[in-house]
Amino acid sequence: MSSAKNVLFIMADQLRADHLACYGHPFIRTPNIDALAKRGVQFERAFVNSGVCGPSRMSYYTGRYPSTHGATWNRVPLSVGEMTLGEYLRASGRKLVLAGKTHVMVDHAGLERLALDGGSELGRLLSNGGFEEIDRYDGHHEPGEESGYPAYLRRHGYVSNDPWTDFVISARGPDGQSVSGWHMRNAQYPSLVQEAHSETAYMTDQAMQFMQQEGDQPWVMHLSYVKPHWPYIAPAPYHAMYSPDQCLPVVRNEDEKHNAHPVLAAYRQHEESISFSMDECIRTVRPAYQGLITQLDDHLGRLFEHMERTGLMDNTLIVFTADHGDFLGDHWLGEKELFYDTVQRVPMIVVDPSAEADATRGSIESRMVESVDILPTILAWLGQPLPTHRLEGHSLLPILRGQPIEWRDCVFSELDYSYRLSRLLTEKTPKNARAWSVRTDQWRYVYWLDEPEQLYDLHADPNQFHDLGQDPAYATVRNECRERLLTWFAGLKRRTTVSYEAVDRGTNAYKKAGVFFGQW
Amino acid sequence: MSSAKNVLFIMADQLRADHLACYGHPFIRTPNIDALAKRGVQFERAFVNSGVCGPSRMSYYTGRYPSTHGATWNRVPLSVGEMTLGEYLRASGRKLVLAGKTHVMVDHAGLERLALDGGSELGRLLSNGGFEEIDRYDGHHEPGEESGYPAYLRRHGYVSNDPWTDFVISARGPDGQSVSGWHMRNAQYPSLVQEAHSETAYMTDQAMQFMQQEGDQPWVMHLSYVKPHWPYIAPAPYHAMYSPDQCLPVVRNEDEKHNAHPVLAAYRQHEESISFSMDECIRTVRPAYQGLITQLDDHLGRLFEHMERTGLMDNTLIVFTADHGDFLGDHWLGEKELFYDTVQRVPMIVVDPSAEADATRGSIESRMVESVDILPTILAWLGQPLPTHRLEGHSLLPILRGQPIEWRDCVFSELDYSYRLSRLLTEKTPKNARAWSVRTDQWRYVYWLDEPEQLYDLHADPNQFHDLGQDPAYATVRNECRERLLTWFAGLKRRTTVSYEAVDRGTNAYKKAGVFFGQW
Repeated sequence: MSSAKNVLFIMADQLRADHLACYGHPFIRTPNIDALAKRGVQFERAFVNSGVCGPSRMSYYTGRYPSTHGATWNRVPLSVGEMTLGEYLRASGRKLVLAGKTHVMVDHAGLERLALDGGSELGRLLSNGGFEEIDRYDGHHEPGEESGYPAYLRRHGYVSNDPWTDFVISARGPDGQSVSGWHMRNAQYPSLVQEAHSETAYMTDQAMQFMQQEGDQPWVMHLSYVKPHWPYIAPAPYHAMYSPDQCLPVVRNEDEKHNAHPVLAAYRQHEESISFSMDECIRTVRPAYQGLITQLDDHLGRLFEHMERTGLMDNTLIVFTADHGDFLGDHWLGEKELFYDTVQRVPMIVVDPSAEADATRGSIESRMVESVDILPTILAWLGQPLPTHRLEGHSLLPILRGQPIEWRDCVFSELDYSYRLSRLLTEKTPKNARAWSVRTDQWRYVYWLDEPEQLYDLHADPNQFHDLGQDPAYATVRNECRERLLTWFAGLKRRTTVSYEAVDRGTNAYKKAGVFFGQW
Repeated sequence: MSSAKNVLFIMADQLRADHLACYGHPFIRTPNIDALAKRGVQFERAFVNSGVCGPSRMSYYTGRYPSTHGATWNRVPLSVGEMTLGEYLRASGRKLVLAGKTHVMVDHAGLERLALDGGSELGRLLSNGGFEEIDRYDGHHEPGEESGYPAYLRRHGYVSNDPWTDFVISARGPDGQSVSGWHMRNAQYPSLVQEAHSETAYMTDQAMQFMQQEGDQPWVMHLSYVKPHWPYIAPAPYHAMYSPDQCLPVVRNEDEKHNAHPVLAAYRQHEESISFSMDECIRTVRPAYQGLITQLDDHLGRLFEHMERTGLMDNTLIVFTADHGDFLGDHWLGEKELFYDTVQRVPMIVVDPSAEADATRGSIESRMVESVDILPTILAWLGQPLPTHRLEGHSLLPILRGQPIEWRDCVFSELDYSYRLSRLLTEKTPKNARAWSVRTDQWRYVYWLDEPEQLYDLHADPNQFHDLGQDPAYATVRNECRERLLTWFAGLKRRTTVSYEAVDRGTNAYKKAGVFFGQW
C-alpha cells in the first residue's frame, strides 16, 4: 500500500466506553473524539482481554491473550520470550516510539538468564517492551529517571523533589491547605498544576514535537495517556466542568449484595469499593473523571488540528482506545478487573486514511473486536507479514474496508487476582486465583478456578444484576459457554518456534530428510 | 539429604510397557530391568504427555505439558524461553550430562532474536536443551559431527562414509546381498554391525566410561538409548532370539475399520499402518523389536553390575522409562502418536536408594504418573528448590517414600498431527490439526479440534475397540471429561516470570509501593 506511512496508536487509561459523547454519554463533551469517529469506524463492541492495565496492554502489544503472553497482572513482567509490536516493526526496519504509559515491567530474571545486559541495545528494547522512548511516563508510579516530566515541571516553576505528588495530584483545599488527590474526597478541587503543564498537556506536546521533528520520515507512535485514570484530580477549568447531576445514573441495586459470588463479595470489601459505595464519593469523583475526559479530548483536538495542518491526517492510521473502564461505584465496586461491560468494554475508533476505507467512514460497527486485534491491524496496514502462528487476534482491515470476512461471535477476557486482597479473603493461592470470561451477544459466562461459575443474560439483564450461574434452567447455556472456552484454550498459540508456512513445507516430508520408516 | 549424589535417568525409545517381563510379557526376557524394579517402585500406570518422541521428551526435560512448552511435534524446536532440567541443575552448580538421544531441535530463530551465538557457552547449552554432551546421538538422523559413533565404527573396521547406513541398519540378505533395515521385511536378518559395536552397546560403554572417569564426583546423567525404535534390525544373536509365536496377540478387529474416527482412518492410510496391517510384517518385525529389548536389558545388566561393583547403586537415583510405545500392528496402525495405552503407557521404574524408600522397594504402584513428574522428582531428590510456578508435574518422592499425598486421578496427553499425511487427508491446517486426551481409571476421552470427540470405556473395553464418542448414553461422561480438560487448560502455567513466593510478597502490598488508590 503506497500511501501507508504513519501509525498513531492512542490509548487512554481507564476510560469507559460509555463516557464519550459519540458512545452516547448525554453530558460529556468530546467533540474531537466524535469527529475522529466520523472519519473512520467506531467499534461499538470493543472488549479488552483483561480488565486491568498490565495484562490488557500486553495483549495490545503482543496480539496475544494473557493466558498466552503470561503477564497476567500489573506486577507480572512480560517474558523476554514474548514478541511485541516494536520487535515486529524492527524486523521491517521501522521503530515503535512511545510517548506515555506502557506498564511494561522488566523481566529481570529473564534478561539475566539470557545474559542480556539491560544496558545493551537489545537488552534495553526487551526491557522496554520493544518501545523506543520519546518519553515513557507511567503516571502514578513515582516519576523517576524514566520520564522527562518532573524536570519539565521544575523548569516551569514547580519546585519540589517530587513535583508530581506536590503539584500534579495535589490541590488547594477550602482552607488554603494542600490536599492530596490520593484522597478521592479532594477530586472536587483543581490540581495545583496548571492545565498547560498537566500530564495530558505535556504528553500531547511530546507527541507533537516528535511529529514536527520527524518531518517526512514515517513513524509509528504509541501515544498513551495516563488519564482519566486515578488519582482523580483535574486542573482548572476541567475540575468544575461537570456537576454531579451530569453523570450517568449509578448502575447498582441492593439485590446484588445478597448471595453475591464469593469473589465479587470479596472485591466489594476492597477499600475502593467501600469508598465508591458512598453516594458522596460517586458524586465527587465522577465529575472530575468526566472533566479529565474532556481535557483529553481538547488536547486530542490540538493534536488532530496539527496533523490536519501538516497533512499527517492523510497518511496516518489512527487507533483510539483504552486499556479498560472504571466501575466508579457501579455494582458497588470501584476500580476495574471484574467481568462487567462497564470495565471490559472500551471505546475503539480506527481511522484508515486510505481510499479503500472510504465506504466505511463514519460507520458504527457492531462486530465484536478485542485488544488482540490491534497489533495485527497495524502490521497489516503497514503491509507487514502477519506472524499468524503467534497472533491470536485478527486484523480489522477487512472490516475497515468493507470486505467480507468470517468473524468471531464471542470475546474472551481473563482475571488473575493473585495479588489482590480478594485472593486472601477467598482463601486462594497464587495458583488458583484465576478466572476467564466468554461474552457472546447474549451471554456473559465466567469460569472461576475453585469457585462457582457465573452466567448473565445480557439481553434480559444488560446490567448483569442476576447471576444465573446456579440456575438449573440454564445448564445447557453454561455448557455451551464452557465449550467455547475449551475451544479457545485449545486454540491458544503456544507453538511459537515454527511458522505455518514452515509446517506446510515440512508436512509429510520425512523421506526428503532421509527417513524411511514404515516401508515393508 | 546427605546421601543424595547421582542421578541416572535412562530412557528407551519407543518401548511399549507391555514388552517387558516385569510388566507381564510372557516371552521377552528382561531380567535386569526386572531386578531394577525389585529394587524400587514399578509404576504400572505411567503415561507420556505426547505419543511422539520430541514433545514427549520435552515434557520430561521441562516438567511441562506440550501445550505449555510448545514443542508439539518432532520438528518443532523447544523455545529458548523454556527452562530445562539442565538449566535448573546448573543454577545449583551441577551439570546434566547426556549419552544418547534427546530429539532437541535448535531454536535458531529464538537464538538469533536474542543475539545468542550458538557458539557461546550459553548459546550452546540453549541449543542442546541444557545438556552437557558426553555423546549426543539421535540415531536415525544421519550421524553427523554431533556424535562420536561414526568415528568409533570406522575405528572398528566399518569403513564407510556412512557406517550407520551401511552397517548398523544394513543386513546380509539370503543371497548374500546387502539389504536395508529401512525395509521392515529385512527385520529378520542380523545387522552387519557386530553386537559389541551396536548402538546400544556403544552408548552403554559411553555411560560406563563416564562413570569411571567421574570417580567420586557427583553427576546427573541422561542415558538415552535409541532402541528398540526403528529401523527394526537387531545384531546377532538378538535378531533370532524370539519366534513370531513368542509375540503378544495382535490387538485389532475388523470392526475398528468401520465408521472409524476420521483422523484414525487417515493414520491407517499412512505407509507404516498399511505395512503393519499385513500379518507378515507383524510376524517379521515383532521378533526383532523384542530382540532389541532383550539386548538393551543385557547392556543394562552390564551397567548395573558395574554400578553395583563401584558402590554407585547405593547413592544413585535411577529412573528407567520410555518416550512412548509402538503400535506394531495393533489397531491396524504402525508407529505411535495416537491415544491408545499401547503408545501412551510406558514402563517407569524408579529406584530411590535412600533408606526412606526402603518400605516401597519391590512394590507395584498403581497411581497414575506422567512424564512431567520426572523433572520435579529429580530436583526434589537432589534437594533442589522446585520452581512450582513453572512445573506442571509433581515429584514422585512422596510415593517412593510411602508418604501420604493427594494425587491426580487422570492424565493428559496431546497430539499435533500438523506435519503428518493424516493432516492433509483430513483437510486440516497447521492450526487445527490438534487433539488432547484425558485418561481416567475408567475413561479415555479425546477432544479434537474440528473433528468428533471420542470416548472409550476402559473397564468394559480395555482395548479401545468401541468408540462411544457419539453415543447419547454417554453424554454426561463426555461432559465430565471435557470439564477435566477445561480445568487442566486453565491450570497450565504460563505466568512464568514470577514465583509464587514473589506473588505472596506482593499481595495487597500496593500501599507499600506508594500507591494509595481507593481512599475516600
